[in-house]
Amino acid sequence: MPDHARHEENHHRLVIVGGGFGGLYATRHLAKAPVNVSLVDKRNFHLFQPLLYQVASGSLSPGNIAVSLREIVAHQANADVILDEVLDIDPQNQALTLRADEHGHPNTLSYDTLILAPGSAKQYFGNDQWEEHAPGLKTLEDAVRIRRKVLYALECAEKETDPLKQAGWMTFVVVGGGPTGVELAGALSELVHGTMKASFRNIDTCQIRIIMVEAADRILAVFPEDLQQKACQRLEQRLGVTLLTNHRVQSIEPGKVILIHQETQKEILTETVLWTAGVKASPLGRILSERTGCELDRGGRVVVEADCSVPHYPNIFVIGDLANFAHTPNQKPLPGLASVAMQQGMYLANVIQHRLNHQVPPPFEYLDKGNMAIIGRNAAIAQVGDLHLSGFIAWMAWLLVHIFYLIGFDNKVLVTFQWAWNYLTKDRSACLITEQI
Amino acid sequence: MPDHARHEENHHRLVIVGGGFGGLYATRHLAKAPVNVSLVDKRNFHLFQPLLYQVASGSLSPGNIAVSLREIVAHQANADVILDEVLDIDPQNQALTLRADEHGHPNTLSYDTLILAPGSAKQYFGNDQWEEHAPGLKTLEDAVRIRRKVLYALECAEKETDPLKQAGWMTFVVVGGGPTGVELAGALSELVHGTMKASFRNIDTCQIRIIMVEAADRILAVFPEDLQQKACQRLEQRLGVTLLTNHRVQSIEPGKVILIHQETQKEILTETVLWTAGVKASPLGRILSERTGCELDRGGRVVVEADCSVPHYPNIFVIGDLANFAHTPNQKPLPGLASVAMQQGMYLANVIQHRLNHQVPPPFEYLDKGNMAIIGRNAAIAQVGDLHLSGFIAWMAWLLVHIFYLIGFDNKVLVTFQWAWNYLTKDRSACLITEQI
Repeated sequence: MPDHARHEENHHRLVIVGGGFGGLYATRHLAKAPVNVSLVDKRNFHLFQPLLYQVASGSLSPGNIAVSLREIVAHQANADVILDEVLDIDPQNQALTLRADEHGHPNTLSYDTLILAPGSAKQYFGNDQWEEHAPGLKTLEDAVRIRRKVLYALECAEKETDPLKQAGWMTFVVVGGGPTGVELAGALSELVHGTMKASFRNIDTCQIRIIMVEAADRILAVFPEDLQQKACQRLEQRLGVTLLTNHRVQSIEPGKVILIHQETQKEILTETVLWTAGVKASPLGRILSERTGCELDRGGRVVVEADCSVPHYPNIFVIGDLANFAHTPNQKPLPGLASVAMQQGMYLANVIQHRLNHQVPPPFEYLDKGNMAIIGRNAAIAQVGDLHLSGFIAWMAWLLVHIFYLIGFDNKVLVTFQWAWNYLTKDRSACLITEQI
Repeated sequence: MPDHARHEENHHRLVIVGGGFGGLYATRHLAKAPVNVSLVDKRNFHLFQPLLYQVASGSLSPGNIAVSLREIVAHQANADVILDEVLDIDPQNQALTLRADEHGHPNTLSYDTLILAPGSAKQYFGNDQWEEHAPGLKTLEDAVRIRRKVLYALECAEKETDPLKQAGWMTFVVVGGGPTGVELAGALSELVHGTMKASFRNIDTCQIRIIMVEAADRILAVFPEDLQQKACQRLEQRLGVTLLTNHRVQSIEPGKVILIHQETQKEILTETVLWTAGVKASPLGRILSERTGCELDRGGRVVVEADCSVPHYPNIFVIGDLANFAHTPNQKPLPGLASVAMQQGMYLANVIQHRLNHQVPPPFEYLDKGNMAIIGRNAAIAQVGDLHLSGFIAWMAWLLVHIFYLIGFDNKVLVTFQWAWNYLTKDRSACLITEQI
């Protein structure tokens, strides 16, 4: 019999699905509550998604932005981690069906209260076949795949003797002009035009083109217009990124991508297309809707009550990217941001404690901390309420905020050191072409 | 046209195959010589193999022990990196056949002088089918695969309800009692009995067994007997590793391994078998032998002259794990150690410079720096000439030597910090179950 703390027999059973920002913050803020927490995740780690693009561009190692969930809650006696996938939800019997292990039979997990925080996945808008040629950026594996694809393209360009093919290897297309696309394009530009400047003998890295494709008429739609303009300037003038707004992707094939602009086709020869154009809700939303009759929005997100619960099921909550929470002053649903998920997670910890004490919890109120995006070395944009920041000061703010929220003191130190090192030397620490790394 | 330095037209063309210790040290020590160096490797990075077991046991990230070859030689104007695989050697025309890119035709690379330093691969002694169940530890991918297998086994044990199956998930077998096996077993023991002690709720990590299987009658054959005994004591008494010497592996199957001890079969139920029992020479040795008639030893290594050249081919050299260099005081071939490869690499840089100046180079002399192996926290063994060290002082020496030889100042700092952090907290930084990370 293990000598460490185990779940108390008679405690309230809380099951949290998803170890992202929402699930993890809920778990940690219940450390002292008289509940048994089971944190269920398909993966054994919490991933700090905002820095994923830095793994994709060779600045950080996967281990720097991912922390084992077991390690995080090891000393939280009332919490347990279950590495498993949720296949079904049974609200009548208050139980989940888990996949269990590869060889085993499905397993059942009962709950008194359920929090669903499974996040979102990448979305190709009905063209899933594009994924083969245009990796997205949602998982650590995605980031490593992008890193491999980019570095490999440069190696092929270096060896290629046919100028047309060489141009294809030296053209990178980033689809999607949201914060992820902008951050990735900026980091790629600095990788190929800075870090790698002296690394090749046959190709001139100045010739490498980075093209950003955005279907709307502007990039960074969530930001105010003055900051959008600053970001465009920075991308085009300092980072040499070509912005193609009002361009839709019509098809992605080996060696090329075809765009539509004002009903005209445009073909770009490229071996490297990276996809940051959209996310879709976790399939758990659909399952929940089938079992509880709850409403889904167009994006497949669950429309939740003012306390993040599912209508008619006060013991089931949905938070983070899967929740459509529209109890806001302007009735617009909250965006899929880390800070929304974090605040909802902490809020639910509070709700559960209120309920255990037979008190009525207040509704969820989102404290808008604004938006930030980094655009390469020394530059970022940030909007906090009416305050619009850009340039070096926004960049410093971006660094501090990201270090602050990164989980694990060791990771904070490691990432800070690597950023300082990269900044001073323009080197990158993790430019590896690997299959499984 | 790139603005950086390119190969000088009339310079001596040196091709080095392999970016390990031998190839890299030769390259770097020729930085100021009037030669054009082409460093050919299948992988785009130099791997610091002595720390691979720390990636396998979740202490370090792959990026900490691998550095992009392009980055290393970026500012060495006379050197070029070619990411490619050598398919054939044509000594008459002084050319190599390269695979070129996936879609391209094979490519030819001419040389005036050739250095082969391709290293070695893992060896299952005619039972390659074992690899599926028993990963070895030679590449970064191997290390990540072992990490995944070990962590996944613990997760399965935590969920398993059948006690017999659970015992299989909680039994780790390390095949091979050389330094790699000892270091891996020690690190695994500290992972499961230290770091993970508080992480599980259903299993008692004290029940996890680590079994080391060695065919010979003792482990760590290269070390003197007093140090072997110290290592055994440490492994058995402090780290709880079961040593099975005089045990040969008869078969490895899903769920079990069958051993032979004094003609009796012994079955161990285990889901996790790790293979560190042998290495084999690179297949380039056989190709070279077919093309030049050079002698191979039983292990497939090329028997070289006193200057590391191939008999009758003074412009072809073989160094490192592929070389059988027996021009030693006792006529025994040098072992496959990093320090042998490094010294041979530096020696060849010197030979080439002598030849360019029409001087006769001296023969290679190996300066035996001894052997070291770490056996977990605070303990190592080291033999330097007649000096035998063990315990804490040998452990400190091990740490310093490994930090010293690790390539890249940033990696030195990152690894030092992570070691200090792991030492103080017993945490591990990189316990991730990933597919491609």
